[in-house]
Amino acid sequence: MSLRIDEGLIAGILRGDKRAIGRAISVVEAGRGSGREPAEALLDALFAHTGRAFRLGITGPPGAGKSTLVTALTKQYRKRGLSVGIVAVDPTSPYSGGALLGDRIRMLDLALEPGVFIRSMAARGALGGLSRAAQGAADVLDASGKDIVIVETVGVGQSELEIAAMADATVVVLVPESGDAVQAMKAGLMEIADLFVINKSDRPGAEQAAAAVGLILSFRVTHDPAQWIAPVLQCVASEDGGIVELDAAIDAYRAHQIATGAVTGKRAHQARERVRQIIEAYRHDGFWSAAKRAQLGAGVAAVLARQTSPYTLARRLMGD
Amino acid sequence: MSLRIDEGLIAGILRGDKRAIGRAISVVEAGRGSGREPAEALLDALFAHTGRAFRLGITGPPGAGKSTLVTALTKQYRKRGLSVGIVAVDPTSPYSGGALLGDRIRMLDLALEPGVFIRSMAARGALGGLSRAAQGAADVLDASGKDIVIVETVGVGQSELEIAAMADATVVVLVPESGDAVQAMKAGLMEIADLFVINKSDRPGAEQAAAAVGLILSFRVTHDPAQWIAPVLQCVASEDGGIVELDAAIDAYRAHQIATGAVTGKRAHQARERVRQIIEAYRHDGFWSAAKRAQLGAGVAAVLARQTSPYTLARRLMGD
Repeated sequence: MSLRIDEGLIAGILRGDKRAIGRAISVVEAGRGSGREPAEALLDALFAHTGRAFRLGITGPPGAGKSTLVTALTKQYRKRGLSVGIVAVDPTSPYSGGALLGDRIRMLDLALEPGVFIRSMAARGALGGLSRAAQGAADVLDASGKDIVIVETVGVGQSELEIAAMADATVVVLVPESGDAVQAMKAGLMEIADLFVINKSDRPGAEQAAAAVGLILSFRVTHDPAQWIAPVLQCVASEDGGIVELDAAIDAYRAHQIATGAVTGKRAHQARERVRQIIEAYRHDGFWSAAKRAQLGAGVAAVLARQTSPYTLARRLMGD
Repeated sequence: MSLRIDEGLIAGILRGDKRAIGRAISVVEAGRGSGREPAEALLDALFAHTGRAFRLGITGPPGAGKSTLVTALTKQYRKRGLSVGIVAVDPTSPYSGGALLGDRIRMLDLALEPGVFIRSMAARGALGGLSRAAQGAADVLDASGKDIVIVETVGVGQSELEIAAMADATVVVLVPESGDAVQAMKAGLMEIADLFVINKSDRPGAEQAAAAVGLILSFRVTHDPAQWIAPVLQCVASEDGGIVELDAAIDAYRAHQIATGAVTGKRAHQARERVRQIIEAYRHDGFWSAAKRAQLGAGVAAVLARQTSPYTLARRLMGD
């Protein structure tokens, strides 16, 4: 890649300058569209400076109080003297606009603190692009020297789950209402959770919800003594309830992963997945030129007339 | 494609012979693995004979009674003298094994009837492959002269939704329990539904559930007078309750789509999507040779050591 790197920008990021970090994440986000090359050049240059931050994925259904939990956890990290970078992926569903705004406004207070950087990212557009951009933003925050990088996503849809699963530890947040645990299981959240939080646990049913998650998890227990059993914590994030315990549980998970060596396999898997996602996206963009799309559009008429089969058209487009 | 086509098999399918249909679907299913070329040759040969069946997608969360509804609806179609082919995609989750088996056993009675063909298909393995196989099986049933082809899937996961959305009409089945409608919305079921069924409507809460779905749908009403508003029907499929009304509602949808011309756009979109899926799958398989996978595995070590960025490794694998 022969693009000129903005050395001033790199230097600014490395010394943790908020404006440089913000500008860099904008460059990374533009990589979802036409700005692919500058985004890549920047991430290539920063990559050697990454790998020191602990990356925390926080996900769960809409309304689980994820942003409130992230805010409370960040305050806890600040008390410990740790710096925190946050990437909050916002769903663009018209149904959730209102609640979301309120959550983000509460987060803004935090954004003014030194040692904290918050960036929200719209979930619009190609989801593969979102995953690349979210990971790129996490790289920028990591390179800027943040001790903890939190990526918050709504746990709906495969691609958003994938983002959460790219973290060193993934926390799945649920609420006590009956059925949430079962829905989480169906949505694939059980597979990616290293820790569970039943948030809003001052509501009725919290004990039962925790028990239900525990029961589902118990089906997964193997004979491997090194297996990590995801703990189920109860929190009331809006009042900082259970946050110290959550902090400790995340640390315990981190220590367990290092002690068992599991962290090595997990990181290798994540790196492989990341490269694979980049390749898929590039190959997709490379193949589907305007001409190819037009060819597909024209060919479909013959398919609808049953003159060409979908397989024949596919082979023709691939030039076989 | 220079493969020899089994003319006897084709002739058997076209005259609706059950053994020929069963064998053909096995060939199509084998196309998910190493049997790609025979599967394609068969589907290429059959394609000109497809397009006459009405394709019905039936989906919804586990436990909604989809199989019971499919059974009841099939009996109703038989009363009208229509022949029916069914592709039931079975989830392979260890959690749902028991209930599923019971449902399938009830379906077996139906399978013995003339004019009905039922095939279940495991959801294991690559999901892109599942979608191709399910559509291929629907093509076989269509070519065999079935008036109605039903594809039943569990509405969890993007790929299974895609399968349901490839139908002429998609029915989403829910139960009265509170929260089901909201979960359906989150899971993307609202977007693909042409009709809703609140099944097991003899349970408490059926009216409220129907009202909740109606409310969510009302947000989608536009000023377009030709817009189809998905009706919400209440059924008790186990007692054939509401099945005649469902049959009529599906027919009304079909008539509406033809009268407004919407069917043309929908079919063109589906054909495009199908060709696109075939291409993505082939290009994926074509790129990820054993050598390429080994190269990725070896390169990951350099990524973990922060010597190579994921983008640099991706470019190298693509031969840039």
